Amino acid sequence: MSARVTSARIPDQLPEPTLRRLPWYLAFVQMLKGRKVEYISTTRIAEELDVDPSQIAKDLSFLGIRGKTRIGYQVEALEAKLRDYLGFDRRHCAIMAGAGSLGAALIADSGLQRYGLNIVAGVDINPDIVGTEISGVHIYAQSEVPELVKKLGVKIGIIAVPVEAAQEVADYLSAAGVQAIWNFTPSRIRVPEGVVISNTSIYSHLAVMYNRLSSLDE
Amino acid sequence: MSARVTSARIPDQLPEPTLRRLPWYLAFVQMLKGRKVEYISTTRIAEELDVDPSQIAKDLSFLGIRGKTRIGYQVEALEAKLRDYLGFDRRHCAIMAGAGSLGAALIADSGLQRYGLNIVAGVDINPDIVGTEISGVHIYAQSEVPELVKKLGVKIGIIAVPVEAAQEVADYLSAAGVQAIWNFTPSRIRVPEGVVISNTSIYSHLAVMYNRLSSLDE
Repeated sequence: MSARVTSARIPDQLPEPTLRRLPWYLAFVQMLKGRKVEYISTTRIAEELDVDPSQIAKDLSFLGIRGKTRIGYQVEALEAKLRDYLGFDRRHCAIMAGAGSLGAALIADSGLQRYGLNIVAGVDINPDIVGTEISGVHIYAQSEVPELVKKLGVKIGIIAVPVEAAQEVADYLSAAGVQAIWNFTPSRIRVPEGVVISNTSIYSHLAVMYNRLSSLDE
Repeated sequence: MSARVTSARIPDQLPEPTLRRLPWYLAFVQMLKGRKVEYISTTRIAEELDVDPSQIAKDLSFLGIRGKTRIGYQVEALEAKLRDYLGFDRRHCAIMAGAGSLGAALIADSGLQRYGLNIVAGVDINPDIVGTEISGVHIYAQSEVPELVKKLGVKIGIIAVPVEAAQEVADYLSAAGVQAIWNFTPSRIRVPEGVVISNTSIYSHLAVMYNRLSSLDE
């Protein structure tokens, strides 16, 4: 009953812009579902999300979803398909490297759990933190990472360490066998071939926002 | 002594890809500065960050920074210029809309402070949270937002509410006079013209990562 059942018809990798829009569609149809709306047209989605209607139809057709002429998409079916495809319903085991301010905050964020991310362990080099628990997640020493990854079936390593340690941490996570690295530091990191890298540079987004703001002032 | 002093030579708005790379350069030169390195060449930065050397030279020339032939950039000067330009040294007052799991986590993240973001107040609709403090930040009722924005000089509104409330919250923040909105929900939101919008959709990044991961399995 996993999403893989349908994968024969779905391309392995969607274009990243499409992938980034799918959660918008999901958020919107979830709201409609909550309001008991039964059908939604591409035109309405387009108005609401400010995306070109033909782009929406194309994005959804990647998932094998096609609307009915004049009626549109059935909200409940669309919601289920998007949720399933996006993987938010499946559990993905992750380890948090760096249990300082940001790492602890992410461990505590129940939103990540709702979106399928299960942080099963934390790692830190600070001996005062190692051995403690944050929101029920145990914090281990760095030397225990290879065993943790194997024992707990960890696929994702999250990096929330100080920027100067980011590459070293990425190296030991990759060596321990994680398949994906989610980098929250503003540092560019390199990973071995075959390891997925995803950057969420919160602080870089700040720089973009500050720049736009200061050009307003001029 | 603000960055504006040099703004006559710097374009108002840099291309967004350049802006996103500047924090990488900053993180790298900060590490070099810590190691007492005096000069760094474009070639070395390029190797370290996997960015084309000519792109680096172009990005830095936007800020009026030029390296010396055969020597490269003076690390300390480059660091100071990047930090100043990116605005991480200036204070930007922000209000956090939604003091639930993610909102509270972001309020608690001292990293944001280090990058110039000063969250001066929180807002929530939950009467159990209103009136409390999170990491020293007072949580107010929604009705108090217009006064808070004026009184505290808030320029940035951060949205960390449930996705179905995102647009409504964006509307009242804009009406209250914030100049920029930092949206952490997976929802696409619209803002009035002249308001800066920045999306950090943590959960959308998860979808991209899950997709890449599952295509590895096949």
